[in-house]
Amino acid sequence: MEKKWKFIKSKNNKKLSIELENNIVIGNQKNINVMAGPCSVESWSQIDEVGSFLSGLGIKIIRGGCFKPRTSPYSFKGLELKGLQFLNDVKEKYNLKVITEVKDSTQVQDVLEVADIVQVGAKAMWDYGILNQLGRTSNPVMIKRSFAATTQECCQIAEYLLNDGNKNVIVCERGIRTFEPNSRFTLDLCGAAWIKNKTILPIFLDPSHAMGFSYGVPELSLACVATNPDGIIIEVHPDPSVAKSDASQQLNFKEFEILFKKMKNVANAIGSNLV
Amino acid sequence: MEKKWKFIKSKNNKKLSIELENNIVIGNQKNINVMAGPCSVESWSQIDEVGSFLSGLGIKIIRGGCFKPRTSPYSFKGLELKGLQFLNDVKEKYNLKVITEVKDSTQVQDVLEVADIVQVGAKAMWDYGILNQLGRTSNPVMIKRSFAATTQECCQIAEYLLNDGNKNVIVCERGIRTFEPNSRFTLDLCGAAWIKNKTILPIFLDPSHAMGFSYGVPELSLACVATNPDGIIIEVHPDPSVAKSDASQQLNFKEFEILFKKMKNVANAIGSNLV
Amino acid sequence: MEKKWKFIKSKNNKKLSIELENNIVIGNQKNINVMAGPCSVESWSQIDEVGSFLSGLGIKIIRGGCFKPRTSPYSFKGLELKGLQFLNDVKEKYNLKVITEVKDSTQVQDVLEVADIVQVGAKAMWDYGILNQLGRTSNPVMIKRSFAATTQECCQIAEYLLNDGNKNVIVCERGIRTFEPNSRFTLDLCGAAWIKNKTILPIFLDPSHAMGFSYGVPELSLACVATNPDGIIIEVHPDPSVAKSDASQQLNFKEFEILFKKMKNVANAIGSNLV
Amino acid sequence: MEKKWKFIKSKNNKKLSIELENNIVIGNQKNINVMAGPCSVESWSQIDEVGSFLSGLGIKIIRGGCFKPRTSPYSFKGLELKGLQFLNDVKEKYNLKVITEVKDSTQVQDVLEVADIVQVGAKAMWDYGILNQLGRTSNPVMIKRSFAATTQECCQIAEYLLNDGNKNVIVCERGIRTFEPNSRFTLDLCGAAWIKNKTILPIFLDPSHAMGFSYGVPELSLACVATNPDGIIIEVHPDPSVAKSDASQQLNFKEFEILFKKMKNVANAIGSNLV
Repeated sequence: MEKKWKFIKSKNNKKLSIELENNIVIGNQKNINVMAGPCSVESWSQIDEVGSFLSGLGIKIIRGGCFKPRTSPYSFKGLELKGLQFLNDVKEKYNLKVITEVKDSTQVQDVLEVADIVQVGAKAMWDYGILNQLGRTSNPVMIKRSFAATTQECCQIAEYLLNDGNKNVIVCERGIRTFEPNSRFTLDLCGAAWIKNKTILPIFLDPSHAMGFSYGVPELSLACVATNPDGIIIEVHPDPSVAKSDASQQLNFKEFEILFKKMKNVANAIGSNLV
Repeated sequence: MEKKWKFIKSKNNKKLSIELENNIVIGNQKNINVMAGPCSVESWSQIDEVGSFLSGLGIKIIRGGCFKPRTSPYSFKGLELKGLQFLNDVKEKYNLKVITEVKDSTQVQDVLEVADIVQVGAKAMWDYGILNQLGRTSNPVMIKRSFAATTQECCQIAEYLLNDGNKNVIVCERGIRTFEPNSRFTLDLCGAAWIKNKTILPIFLDPSHAMGFSYGVPELSLACVATNPDGIIIEVHPDPSVAKSDASQQLNFKEFEILFKKMKNVANAIGSNLV
Repeated sequence: MEKKWKFIKSKNNKKLSIELENNIVIGNQKNINVMAGPCSVESWSQIDEVGSFLSGLGIKIIRGGCFKPRTSPYSFKGLELKGLQFLNDVKEKYNLKVITEVKDSTQVQDVLEVADIVQVGAKAMWDYGILNQLGRTSNPVMIKRSFAATTQECCQIAEYLLNDGNKNVIVCERGIRTFEPNSRFTLDLCGAAWIKNKTILPIFLDPSHAMGFSYGVPELSLACVATNPDGIIIEVHPDPSVAKSDASQQLNFKEFEILFKKMKNVANAIGSNLV
Repeated sequence: MEKKWKFIKSKNNKKLSIELENNIVIGNQKNINVMAGPCSVESWSQIDEVGSFLSGLGIKIIRGGCFKPRTSPYSFKGLELKGLQFLNDVKEKYNLKVITEVKDSTQVQDVLEVADIVQVGAKAMWDYGILNQLGRTSNPVMIKRSFAATTQECCQIAEYLLNDGNKNVIVCERGIRTFEPNSRFTLDLCGAAWIKNKTILPIFLDPSHAMGFSYGVPELSLACVATNPDGIIIEVHPDPSVAKSDASQQLNFKEFEILFKKMKNVANAIGSNLV
């Protein structure tokens, strides 16, 4: 059965590599790409501030969510199309690339207008309405592993896209659900090691969502970098205390800047580069 | 925070009750409603055979999936619109009610044409594109608990619909993901006891998907009935050995008939009725 | 590898059956044996009251823990040898059989003096110092599945005893650890179905420890009985509100008596007897 | 309730520090101590070879198990007292410190004769017979977190020893049990971050047991070092292919030596030292 999976690494296939503009290559295993930004796009001034900050550090990819339907129907739901517009503006202003999330199959076409990389959220991993649309494009896609999915299942979702002709697929480990209550999820670096060593898929790691508390994000981020992944995605916000979502887990600018330098050092220590 | 959840049971609110035609009432805590049928609608002759069988037993609600995108892109994907047509025909022929699943927000309107109860599948539990459409109708909805969702999170999804005005909401426990490998999932009757005792939501139980192997389905079904839930949903197929999906967990007609009698006995033993 | 496991059911071996005095047979699959009693033996008057109550209902096996070292070093630790003496006295006074727990290999010989069935607690399941002693006797033993053990692993512990010559082994499912927070553990009836159908080991079910809250114990107990296990073990206390351990999950006498009648009805409904 | 836990970090208490001979200090947060060696002590020549190898690298603490009762009663059970003697000999020959495991309360006194640090194995974490003996000494103890224990529960076990007067306590995260099947366990660096930041307990990490497969051990080890723990424990064997236990997860000498250099680089990159 496994024989026919395209994502399994064998002598005949090698790791996927994805090229964006601006000489950004994801998945060549020489660089560790950084994506950073707030959980949600909250206003123009907020995302402008983040764009300026990241750009100053030399970071090339900004993240930010525009659709934020959440388990509670009473929470902030995101800026939606207006948020996408802000992302488009910040992208042009600072010459950044954008990754943003699609949560529902009706949003795919709008997101494709703006996103250099479309993120399929963990809760939408099994949404074949989304996948069917993304498989027919060649737009880069990052599939976040559902917190209830085995690594095999996550890679089988990537297979959907590979099979439909879209080879620009990344998977992202962002924590699985376990019995441990002192963190939001449990970052599964063992599973990530399987994906990295046994499949052709580029892998990103998301320490922010796994930990859920900013005090632990720096050391987990360094751990992620030390495994030499294809990339890392970290939440940063101008003022986490007033963030409209995921306030507890976002780093502020100062924390992020200190961490960024340490991550560069660790990347160098293992013979890689953080870009 | 919990104060404002409408689903939490308190002195001021009581258990929801849902009325379908044919004098079918779900959630009055006097009856245990049975839903049965194959995993997938596979052909007219298959679903006709099941309709005839269930009708002969006095069962009033037939289940059958039409949209079957699954983790492997190489598996049977369901009959889609043709399957919905078959369900509509079997419903009229045998005077049954139909529950069938929606997996993607683009399918909702088609499913609403046929389904007396729309099932939101476990992997689609967090699909707000689906939920937003269902909240604006009064069509009964059964939300299957994601195998990665806490009971609280599952009920918060029901809250979405309650909040939008649709009070005809059922939740269904169908197994959660654990470390135990000898069953497909782990049926969470402890969590179901919380839902039953602490919320206003009617609760169904699905032993077939939890166990994943037909040998264990009868005893788990009896266990479910003994907890006096609002209903139970069980997979039955004319010939499970040739089923196009979930072959290992579906009962054949003879196994189901024997079980059905035992379930009636257990229901009576606890002072309830199986209908 | 599995070929050599003695616990796996095959054509050549059948379900184990254990005979105690007083015509008590465990594991013949015709009866469902009840074990009941408090979490801890707390005083003579407490255990005497329970003995009188159980005896009046016709229940033949009393449970009660004497060694209660618990995760917090600041909690009640049990009456130890004095508790064993109380169990011995209550056993003689009411002609009961006793099951009590051993937590450490140094306690085995003392417990063997009193216990008709020695319980190996869930947290001691892998304690080979205990197992080595119990394998060399023919005293009945009930192994409680560790909340972190697969069903296979639990049965492999039983294998230790079978292999050393003690064929009087029972296993007990008492809940596994999962991500669900609204119950103490998750009762794994799917795993229990595997043990019952695929091994020769008698199986007991413990709804009290799984649920952790008395409101859910009755319906879970009925579910357990409906699966036709070899037995069930339930916690009951004269006044749970003052219990020195597990206060939240023990039933009072009135609750237990009502439940006991219902369990008898359910047992009869599936063609078995509760004894 | 939590107020009285001694292990919780507050203004009034600081991180524990443990001093061994040879100027080895564990827990001062300036160094990352390495413990390495085979899963089991298998013969004098095997452990002598490992001692020579580690000593050549400047590693000061050797590990090796002597008591290996395992879930299958048919597996290698360890050299027991003879193994302890070999550890004592290798310790003197190469001027190493020894950490070795106790699995049963009857072994504690023998192990204390040899072990500079007594390891309480994951499956014995709740064995109060062991803990009671270790609490009355001042011998350093490393408690391996049960793969079913929350971080809080693991630290409460440390509390037992602190409360009895033994302040030389280390906890070790070595993987928890989750639904992911592609690794043996799931290394919980999120939980470890909680222990490191919120308690006074020194923390070690064990990537070997978590991953279970040697191909992933190097990158996980680097991840561990990057979190700046108090130490790391890694399995290494002269020839893993013939190891009598845990063959799949032990590194050979060459793999370990390459890794050791990389770990030193990563430690330096975060401003620490590997010793």
